[in-house]
Amino acid sequence: MYHVGIDVGGTNLKAGLVDQDGKILAVERVPLDFHGAEAFAATLADLAQAVLRTGGVDIAQVACVGIGLPGAVAGGDALFITNIPMRDVPLAQLFRKHLDLPVLLGNDADCAAVGEFFCGAGKGTRDLVVVTLGTGIGGGIILDGKLRGGLSSSEAGHLVICHGGEPCNCGRRGCWEQYASATGLIRLTKEAMAEHPESLLHQVAAETGGVEGRTAFQAAERGDETALGVCRNYVEYLADGTVSLINILRPEVVAIGGGVAAAPDELLMEPLREIVSRESFARHGGRTTRILRAELGNDAGIIGAAMLDRVV
Amino acid sequence: MYHVGIDVGGTNLKAGLVDQDGKILAVERVPLDFHGAEAFAATLADLAQAVLRTGGVDIAQVACVGIGLPGAVAGGDALFITNIPMRDVPLAQLFRKHLDLPVLLGNDADCAAVGEFFCGAGKGTRDLVVVTLGTGIGGGIILDGKLRGGLSSSEAGHLVICHGGEPCNCGRRGCWEQYASATGLIRLTKEAMAEHPESLLHQVAAETGGVEGRTAFQAAERGDETALGVCRNYVEYLADGTVSLINILRPEVVAIGGGVAAAPDELLMEPLREIVSRESFARHGGRTTRILRAELGNDAGIIGAAMLDRVV
Repeated sequence: MYHVGIDVGGTNLKAGLVDQDGKILAVERVPLDFHGAEAFAATLADLAQAVLRTGGVDIAQVACVGIGLPGAVAGGDALFITNIPMRDVPLAQLFRKHLDLPVLLGNDADCAAVGEFFCGAGKGTRDLVVVTLGTGIGGGIILDGKLRGGLSSSEAGHLVICHGGEPCNCGRRGCWEQYASATGLIRLTKEAMAEHPESLLHQVAAETGGVEGRTAFQAAERGDETALGVCRNYVEYLADGTVSLINILRPEVVAIGGGVAAAPDELLMEPLREIVSRESFARHGGRTTRILRAELGNDAGIIGAAMLDRVV
Repeated sequence: MYHVGIDVGGTNLKAGLVDQDGKILAVERVPLDFHGAEAFAATLADLAQAVLRTGGVDIAQVACVGIGLPGAVAGGDALFITNIPMRDVPLAQLFRKHLDLPVLLGNDADCAAVGEFFCGAGKGTRDLVVVTLGTGIGGGIILDGKLRGGLSSSEAGHLVICHGGEPCNCGRRGCWEQYASATGLIRLTKEAMAEHPESLLHQVAAETGGVEGRTAFQAAERGDETALGVCRNYVEYLADGTVSLINILRPEVVAIGGGVAAAPDELLMEPLREIVSRESFARHGGRTTRILRAELGNDAGIIGAAMLDRVV
């Protein structure tokens, strides 16, 4: 049997035909162009059929379609989707009007975790947390082989790490993702640039057409002290939430993914591991959590969506 | 069959004989007087035998002995116990030299959660978090009917909520328990007293022989503005970690226990519920977590220790 995984991103919809081992056999994509939930469901169903044609697989050979969405889902309903005006939409039901297959919905961070669990950094574990550092922070939690919360999503990016700190669009202040997402890193970088006009950060930003998540890492690699300070600060914020998740959940592995995870080891993963090993309660004994880089990159969402039926 | 639950507290050891319904049939207690792990294990075994005698139950009718300890445990080992100098002690094995019964060790906060799960605020749920507000913050997490981490403990008190904040004896800075434990509340109260010499807090503290966790609540009930401010601040800190736990875990119930939980509803539970309902991600849909007061008080530890074998 085959599975179809659909990754609903900020600009594109991508569908993948996935085999039992989590291998992607074919991919189709269309731009995201939202004209209401009914039309959106039809587009998703068309996309699934397109990837089946491309892969030369008959619908009778498909066990399930999984759809990863950037937001909150519960059962077959899309409750609240970031950047797409869908609220409390029975998306699975609408989809099945066009394509009669079992459909599961998942939060995109949860799907990334499922992908890493079966085919990436979490392979062989039972307990995995995947932290995806992008515009926000996605947190996918798998405990004892099951997606935590079933198909309702965890929101690890909305741990408060700075009481009364930066306002977050979730309604709280001081959420982890305000500091440790790519967006947070860009803010830290801009603040440091304003304070340090002599920093190489200005030149690096100018070379790449603006401040990005990687700007601080690039300037730090060239020895800039201000940039090194930004990277250190950033890793401390990243460690705040990481250690908190470890203290609460004690997973076997925390996998760090998303664009920021591409930063050089000595500036990101190594200092992060150092803080985790110094600060996590597990140093008093018990299970020690390994901190790994996520392995699947952008494929994690498709693979994980396709494999949702194994973790619920 | 019966169970024995032993609660190792800061000053006393208490053993309870517990029936299948979680009812305590007999209790025995001795002062904690530590002279090495071997003698400690013998004392625990004596205490278990004493409570069997008191209850008139034969050892053959006992399924299991559970021991709740203030610290980190893993399997049958006491890894790191607060206030008792035991490190990496095979306590279950030492205990069984004196009394040949199955023995399980549990963290005390975990035991409180197990007790509440079967017999208190969590009865009928599958997913429960119990937050115990005492000298520190204990966090016991039950997911899908199993104690999270098995017999290794969760450390929810060591969520960072104030980046770079108050140093914690766990090695981090800004841990939740530095702000939202009874100890944290006393610190907040003293800080407010230093700033407001006119506050009724001074009089209330003098009447009760010093600043306690309840001082702020007592003065607030008498209308003191400074005390009302302390209570509001305190609840905000308490909500920080509570909402974070909800965002990560989405339990059915969070039960608040420990000495501080005795505060008047309108000063503690009501404003806490208000912040949770405003700030938790679940307001976008999905499962809504109920915030309840823990029900079992000091019995939770004994009952939960006795019932450890049902949740691992």
